[in-house]
Amino acid sequence: MIIILKDSATPEQVDHVIERVESLGLQAHLSRGTYRTVIGVIGDEEKLQAAPLMAIPGVAQVMPVLPPYKLASRQAHPQPTVVDVSGVKIGGGHLALIAGPCAIESAERMDGIARAVKAAGANLLRGGAFKPRTSPYSFQGMGEDGLKILREAGDKYGLPVVTEVMDPRRIEMVVEYADMIQLGARNMQNFVLLTEVGATNKPVLLKRGMSATIKDLLMSAEYILSEGNPNVVLCERGVKGFDTETRNLYDVSAVPVCHGLSHLPIVVDPSHATGRPDLIVPCALAGVAAGADGVHVEVHDQPEEALSDGAQALLPDQYTELVGQIRRLADLLGKQISPSGGLAEV
Amino acid sequence: MIIILKDSATPEQVDHVIERVESLGLQAHLSRGTYRTVIGVIGDEEKLQAAPLMAIPGVAQVMPVLPPYKLASRQAHPQPTVVDVSGVKIGGGHLALIAGPCAIESAERMDGIARAVKAAGANLLRGGAFKPRTSPYSFQGMGEDGLKILREAGDKYGLPVVTEVMDPRRIEMVVEYADMIQLGARNMQNFVLLTEVGATNKPVLLKRGMSATIKDLLMSAEYILSEGNPNVVLCERGVKGFDTETRNLYDVSAVPVCHGLSHLPIVVDPSHATGRPDLIVPCALAGVAAGADGVHVEVHDQPEEALSDGAQALLPDQYTELVGQIRRLADLLGKQISPSGGLAEV
Amino acid sequence: MIIILKDSATPEQVDHVIERVESLGLQAHLSRGTYRTVIGVIGDEEKLQAAPLMAIPGVAQVMPVLPPYKLASRQAHPQPTVVDVSGVKIGGGHLALIAGPCAIESAERMDGIARAVKAAGANLLRGGAFKPRTSPYSFQGMGEDGLKILREAGDKYGLPVVTEVMDPRRIEMVVEYADMIQLGARNMQNFVLLTEVGATNKPVLLKRGMSATIKDLLMSAEYILSEGNPNVVLCERGVKGFDTETRNLYDVSAVPVCHGLSHLPIVVDPSHATGRPDLIVPCALAGVAAGADGVHVEVHDQPEEALSDGAQALLPDQYTELVGQIRRLADLLGKQISPSGGLAEV
Amino acid sequence: MIIILKDSATPEQVDHVIERVESLGLQAHLSRGTYRTVIGVIGDEEKLQAAPLMAIPGVAQVMPVLPPYKLASRQAHPQPTVVDVSGVKIGGGHLALIAGPCAIESAERMDGIARAVKAAGANLLRGGAFKPRTSPYSFQGMGEDGLKILREAGDKYGLPVVTEVMDPRRIEMVVEYADMIQLGARNMQNFVLLTEVGATNKPVLLKRGMSATIKDLLMSAEYILSEGNPNVVLCERGVKGFDTETRNLYDVSAVPVCHGLSHLPIVVDPSHATGRPDLIVPCALAGVAAGADGVHVEVHDQPEEALSDGAQALLPDQYTELVGQIRRLADLLGKQISPSGGLAEV
Repeated sequence: MIIILKDSATPEQVDHVIERVESLGLQAHLSRGTYRTVIGVIGDEEKLQAAPLMAIPGVAQVMPVLPPYKLASRQAHPQPTVVDVSGVKIGGGHLALIAGPCAIESAERMDGIARAVKAAGANLLRGGAFKPRTSPYSFQGMGEDGLKILREAGDKYGLPVVTEVMDPRRIEMVVEYADMIQLGARNMQNFVLLTEVGATNKPVLLKRGMSATIKDLLMSAEYILSEGNPNVVLCERGVKGFDTETRNLYDVSAVPVCHGLSHLPIVVDPSHATGRPDLIVPCALAGVAAGADGVHVEVHDQPEEALSDGAQALLPDQYTELVGQIRRLADLLGKQISPSGGLAEV
Repeated sequence: MIIILKDSATPEQVDHVIERVESLGLQAHLSRGTYRTVIGVIGDEEKLQAAPLMAIPGVAQVMPVLPPYKLASRQAHPQPTVVDVSGVKIGGGHLALIAGPCAIESAERMDGIARAVKAAGANLLRGGAFKPRTSPYSFQGMGEDGLKILREAGDKYGLPVVTEVMDPRRIEMVVEYADMIQLGARNMQNFVLLTEVGATNKPVLLKRGMSATIKDLLMSAEYILSEGNPNVVLCERGVKGFDTETRNLYDVSAVPVCHGLSHLPIVVDPSHATGRPDLIVPCALAGVAAGADGVHVEVHDQPEEALSDGAQALLPDQYTELVGQIRRLADLLGKQISPSGGLAEV
Repeated sequence: MIIILKDSATPEQVDHVIERVESLGLQAHLSRGTYRTVIGVIGDEEKLQAAPLMAIPGVAQVMPVLPPYKLASRQAHPQPTVVDVSGVKIGGGHLALIAGPCAIESAERMDGIARAVKAAGANLLRGGAFKPRTSPYSFQGMGEDGLKILREAGDKYGLPVVTEVMDPRRIEMVVEYADMIQLGARNMQNFVLLTEVGATNKPVLLKRGMSATIKDLLMSAEYILSEGNPNVVLCERGVKGFDTETRNLYDVSAVPVCHGLSHLPIVVDPSHATGRPDLIVPCALAGVAAGADGVHVEVHDQPEEALSDGAQALLPDQYTELVGQIRRLADLLGKQISPSGGLAEV
Repeated sequence: MIIILKDSATPEQVDHVIERVESLGLQAHLSRGTYRTVIGVIGDEEKLQAAPLMAIPGVAQVMPVLPPYKLASRQAHPQPTVVDVSGVKIGGGHLALIAGPCAIESAERMDGIARAVKAAGANLLRGGAFKPRTSPYSFQGMGEDGLKILREAGDKYGLPVVTEVMDPRRIEMVVEYADMIQLGARNMQNFVLLTEVGATNKPVLLKRGMSATIKDLLMSAEYILSEGNPNVVLCERGVKGFDTETRNLYDVSAVPVCHGLSHLPIVVDPSHATGRPDLIVPCALAGVAAGADGVHVEVHDQPEEALSDGAQALLPDQYTELVGQIRRLADLLGKQISPSGGLAEV
């Protein structure tokens, strides 16, 4: 921690800051510059993080030198974490290919889409049973019936399943059906959910909030890790931008930035990042080229009938084509794609 | 709803769109321009909002002409809503002066701050018992003990109390203690909370999310209103910006924009918007000058001892000075400040 | 300057950094923390600003402690600067009321608008003869003919005139006609223009760029000041935002932020900041309440005939009403409005 | 053009709008919805673009259906444009590999870097002789001496050269030395420069401004094209973002968005987009995977001695490694890299 004092700081104020630092069992290292006085703090920086030093008169700026996320940081765990989702590996050279409809709509539709994405080469199946919708008048999801349908489709086609949870009272139920729990962008800082999901041992797909910095994202991962659940996969899905050409602004640089700061895997979601089917393929490939540990794409066989976000889904044929391109790129980069289980039947 | 077709749209595609529109009981009004074909839809636009028209081949753009929030819109309710919080009016010319510490820390501290803000002229008391903290290692709030302390201070000084709820399982408890429920910026799109808070009859202080458009904010208000709770007060508290001089970017224009689109009151929170005590006074006055229905400010008597966000609080003396300036400005603008109740004792 | 080393920095790398610092005649003050090594640099920080320290292996972060703008900083000049535009004072308690059409369109129109804004109480007249237009097919301004028209209107109604320059080859011409030169938002970092305008002694109205931080804005002011022209007035006119309700995002907090960092006056331009006539009045008042040294508003008597930006102008009556409100607010705040000269005739 | 009227619009206002439309020789097509009246305009939309329809009372919204850039649009020119820079092709399957130092610093340094990037496989050489620097106290470039050095290095190593022009009075000089003119991000809306560069026949590298939408970028290209110069190459180099991890926010989706809207080639510049050497390689590969027509990277052999932006340059060895990866990716994607000329000597 480095504390920079105002040039108007009085000697008494400087002394007061030093006192506060030392009262926490830390050493203060004073350095008077030509223009500014700076106090370096030596010792366990965390002790200071709770103290509102900025509120002390005379203090101009407080700069931590350690990241506030400990468990999520690369320093804590130099090797990349590989998350295992019922046999499918994500991270450390293993790519996840997560696909499925935005919302689970019926058993027939789910079956058709699951069959199609499996055939295309996906290794994880997604589908929402509880949908966070901007409008109270939009379809809110099928609830537990949807979870059953997803589980059945996953079992039938040998695809572990990912689904979102929004309500802490539904975690127990979702955990029963899902292989991986998704926390959506709007819930990235729902600290109640983060804490409770951290208390399970399910893999978690943690989507970056639309106004979240990478540090914010890693702090949210830290909530889960600090509760004892190490199986966190980050997901870049676009941040808020000023250009209305795309729904969000796809931040592909988040991939190497996260890999530099953290050992956790990170996948990209070009469907939500762009909101446009014509941009999904180039943006998915961009993500893989930047080092992403997987690609999350919405696929629907009848987009114009979809009950949610149909306009940003790929058709099964387009997805098949995309997976082919990802495979060739993965080969070039020396990455692997975990096979999912064989079909239970067919 | 206006549907613009791609210039490459085939006659079959145009027919298909018209069919879809008519199948919903609406009229399609075709208009072939020199370059583009446009379909105007006549009838109840809502029926179309659920249909993913953008997913139909040949469709270039879909433009709603009605706002998707009905109950929150000015059209639905031309007169400004006045929310009554246990006798304190907000909206329609009545200003709320909401003040208190970020977090409830102890009965003694709460008592001191409540006394100070009451003396300064505040008419509502705030304090957090459940704190959304970026870091899992930060102070998370006193919980129910904190609620009791807040209630006591409110009763003693005749100030209705506002406090945040983050967990749907705590709503019942919070409703018991509080006069107004706060939904924080990070929970503005926590649709579970919105729905359940809508099912109570408590006034709600709904803070704008950091990446929420005004439309998003009004859609979140719509969730509460559509459940039957009409007592929603909006709060502008800064959006995500690119300049690190301030914690967020204070969007003072949100005040007149909301007043144009909606009948709901809107207050400003310059503490969170700027994160800097030296900017609170000018930004609070700016908000009132722009037409805000109140000002929410954090006040702490010992900022450097604060367990949360001490660095962005005003001292009681500074708050007293601010209230004086707000009163003079309110007089100039013809606004009133509801007195809160008399002191229970003192 | 504070240099933070990577935790992987070798002793040789640390030595190398110290050597570089000392080779510039500065003292390096080493402080080894528990986790990180930090080097404080004592001496003239500017010598280091040109050196790319971040490029040295082992360096994690470089943090200047002094602002890179010297002449524009409050430290350099603790008292507020008062800029005198042909008798009209701006700053230090004096408000500028700058008004006029976006573009100069004809002598008749200019005369009518000038008469109206003078009658309303404006003390400076604006109008563009060279217009920066997004489209090459839009009206580009009347050029020197426009300047003559503006000068005549200013002389007739006793209003000093402000007009934009975009081309360094036109500065000489513009200086001849104008009392104050405007540098537009798109030219805030046109360093050629900044330098040449700095070499004149004309007052400059420097508009903030749409993606400029306050530091960027003050650095651009520094260009002008460092060439010897001290007469710079800053202008907040909205930054890029994500909500399409307004054309830009009006950053009213820029006013107190600039006043804290710099002695230069700052005015607000709610016309360009919001792009909506219905928001100009509340946003203008917000700016004055936040401490702005003036208000810049576009006024047009026939907005639907305007050749540029008609949709964001106030009508003369609306402007008259606004000036009345600003005057009452100025009285409350103890601010003055410099009278402009008497009419040359009429 | 579609004109949506306010629900409060009177019949007289509706008639007035129709009159205005018809007075321009266009047909107005009225469509009264249940809630709103809409006027579709048939005929040459451009005639209306100059008319400030939004300023007419009763008008709620005006929506163009055609892009305002004509020459730059894909409709105008369905095939991709291939720009030829002294024999090196950019676009339509041909990749540009542009590399060199940020600023030209001396003949020796330029020679060394040119030799290195040629050996690595670059086909265009960059270097700045006129530098847009945020601070007036930073190195501003070598001017014409720098241009001579760049030209010599280009000739010696058979690399066409790209360099920035900032001042319209220097275009003639720069055109004499350079094979391609760069317009920097800060000058993307310097309409004086755009117009004059459009009057030359030199290829132009047009960098996207930090707050420019794709539409803004294409409108700036339109300025150049409309003056008769068809040789425009766009460049994505990051937009303003809220996360301080990177210098700007690299918008890789701009590549496919531009390819959809326009026939012009677009290259990416991960050096300026990220400002961090460790992110250049992954972000360059992401750009190529997304379909970019080239990669622009700063390379310096002694970053810590660089006079400008040393901290964001690659070392020659890193660049060599990057070019290898780009070549393999290009092969996979079926793209070609134009060889530059042979060495003049060596």
